[in-house]
Amino acid sequence: MGLKEKKRIVLIGAGNLATHLGHALNSAGHQVVQVYSRTKKSATELATKLNALPVTSLNKLPEADIYIIAVKDDAIAQVCKSIKTNGIVIHTSGSTGIDVIKRCSPNAGVLYPLQTFSKKRTLDFSKVPLCVEATNHKTERELLLLARGLSENVTVVDSEKRKTLHLAAVFACNFSNHMFAVAETILKKDKLPFSLLIPLIEETTAKIKSGSPEKMQTGPAARQDVTIMKKHLKMLGKDKQLQQLYSLVSKNIIKNKA
Amino acid sequence: MGLKEKKRIVLIGAGNLATHLGHALNSAGHQVVQVYSRTKKSATELATKLNALPVTSLNKLPEADIYIIAVKDDAIAQVCKSIKTNGIVIHTSGSTGIDVIKRCSPNAGVLYPLQTFSKKRTLDFSKVPLCVEATNHKTERELLLLARGLSENVTVVDSEKRKTLHLAAVFACNFSNHMFAVAETILKKDKLPFSLLIPLIEETTAKIKSGSPEKMQTGPAARQDVTIMKKHLKMLGKDKQLQQLYSLVSKNIIKNKA
Repeated sequence: MGLKEKKRIVLIGAGNLATHLGHALNSAGHQVVQVYSRTKKSATELATKLNALPVTSLNKLPEADIYIIAVKDDAIAQVCKSIKTNGIVIHTSGSTGIDVIKRCSPNAGVLYPLQTFSKKRTLDFSKVPLCVEATNHKTERELLLLARGLSENVTVVDSEKRKTLHLAAVFACNFSNHMFAVAETILKKDKLPFSLLIPLIEETTAKIKSGSPEKMQTGPAARQDVTIMKKHLKMLGKDKQLQQLYSLVSKNIIKNKA
Repeated sequence: MGLKEKKRIVLIGAGNLATHLGHALNSAGHQVVQVYSRTKKSATELATKLNALPVTSLNKLPEADIYIIAVKDDAIAQVCKSIKTNGIVIHTSGSTGIDVIKRCSPNAGVLYPLQTFSKKRTLDFSKVPLCVEATNHKTERELLLLARGLSENVTVVDSEKRKTLHLAAVFACNFSNHMFAVAETILKKDKLPFSLLIPLIEETTAKIKSGSPEKMQTGPAARQDVTIMKKHLKMLGKDKQLQQLYSLVSKNIIKNKA
C-alpha cells in the first residue's frame, strides 16, 4: 500500500466487531489513532493491541480521515451527537440506515461486514463480505478503496437492501444456530454427545455451496412422511414450545416443496 | 483386511444411502454380491459400479453373510416379509426400531449412519458416525467389526437413543437447512445473491466445534433487541407464516437465554 492511502482512523467501540476491524485495518497499513469505549478497560485492551490511544470521552476526538462507529445499533444515534467533522464518518450496522449518521459529516457512509464476530475467534477478514454505502460519490470511492484493502468480497449495497441482508442473516446464522441448540437439548436428555452431529452439520453446510438450500432440503417433512413426523411430535410431547416449532418448520418445508 | 473378515453382502436398496454404503463396503474389501431395487434401472446402475448382480425380486436372494436393508423407512417391514435367513440382517434407519426386522433372522441388527447422503456428492465415509445395535452379542461383535472397517466413528446405540438422535438430526440438519432456504427466499425478493451469506454460514458452523451452540447464540433475540425484532416482523409483513416462524424461534431463543 502506498503512503497516500494510509488513513488516520478513530475507532468508536471496542466490542467483537471493532476488535476484528481494528486488527484488519492495522494489517492493511492504516493507523488507528484512538479507540473509544465507555469503559476504560475495554478501550485500553483494544487500543494497546492496535498501538492507539484509549479514550472514554467522545468530547476530545482528534482530527482523523475516517471515524468508524462500531457500537451497538441502539447507541449509534447517541454517539453521533458528539461528532461533527468533515472527515468520513461511517457506521457498521446491518439494520441501521445511513440517514442516522448524516448529521455527523457531509461525508457519511456505512461499512457492514456480513459476518458473526467473537473476540476469541480468529477469522480471515479477507473473506468477509463487506457492504458499502455512502452519501456521495467521493466518499463511496474512498470507502470502496478502504474496503477492498480489507476484503476480497466488497459490494455496494443501499440501506434498504442492507436491511434485507441483515434479516436474511438472522435466519441463516442466528436461527440455524438455534436449531443446533435445540438438537443439543434433545440429545442431552438422553445423555448423547452433541459431537455426534458435527459431521452431519458440516455436510449440511457444505451442500449449500453446490446448490440452492431449497433444492437440497431432505428429511421427513420434505418427503411428507407423516408417520415419522407424528412420532417426533410425540417424542417432544412434554415441551409444547418445541412441538410448535417442529410443526411450524415442517409446515413451511412442505409448503416450499408444494 | 484379512481374508476371514471378507463378507458376502446383499444390498437391498439402491438409493442415496445404499449407494454410499455400497462403495464404502467395496473399498473395505467386502463383496456386494447382489443389489436389489424395485426398478431395473436403479438396481443395474448401482450393481454395475459394485460389480454385483442387479435384481428386482426379493424371492431369489442368494446365501450371504449380511443382508443390508437400505430402503425408505416405511418399506422396511414389507421387505422383511421376503427374508428368512440365519445370516445377519440389518436395517439402516434412524427412526425404526430393531424389532421390525427380528422376524427375518435370529441375528438382526441396525447400522445407522448419522449423515445426509446424496448420490451426486462424494463424502469421506470414514468420518460418518455409525450407530450399531444387535439382537445378540455375537451379531453385535460382527457388526462392530464391519462398522469399524468403514468408519473411525462407531458407537453402540439402542433403538430408543437412536430415535432421539434421529429427531435431533432433523433439527440440526433439515431444519437448519430450512433456515438457509428462508434466507435465500428473503434475498431473492431484493435480487441479492445467496452466496453473500456463505461465509457467515460457514463461520456459524465452525463456531459450534469450539463450544455449545446455546452459548454461541447471537442476534437480536439473544440480546433481546425488541426494536430490531419489531422492524424484522414488519419487513416480513406480507408473509404471515414467516412472521410466525420469526416470532416463535425468537421466543425460544429468549427463553433459552433466561
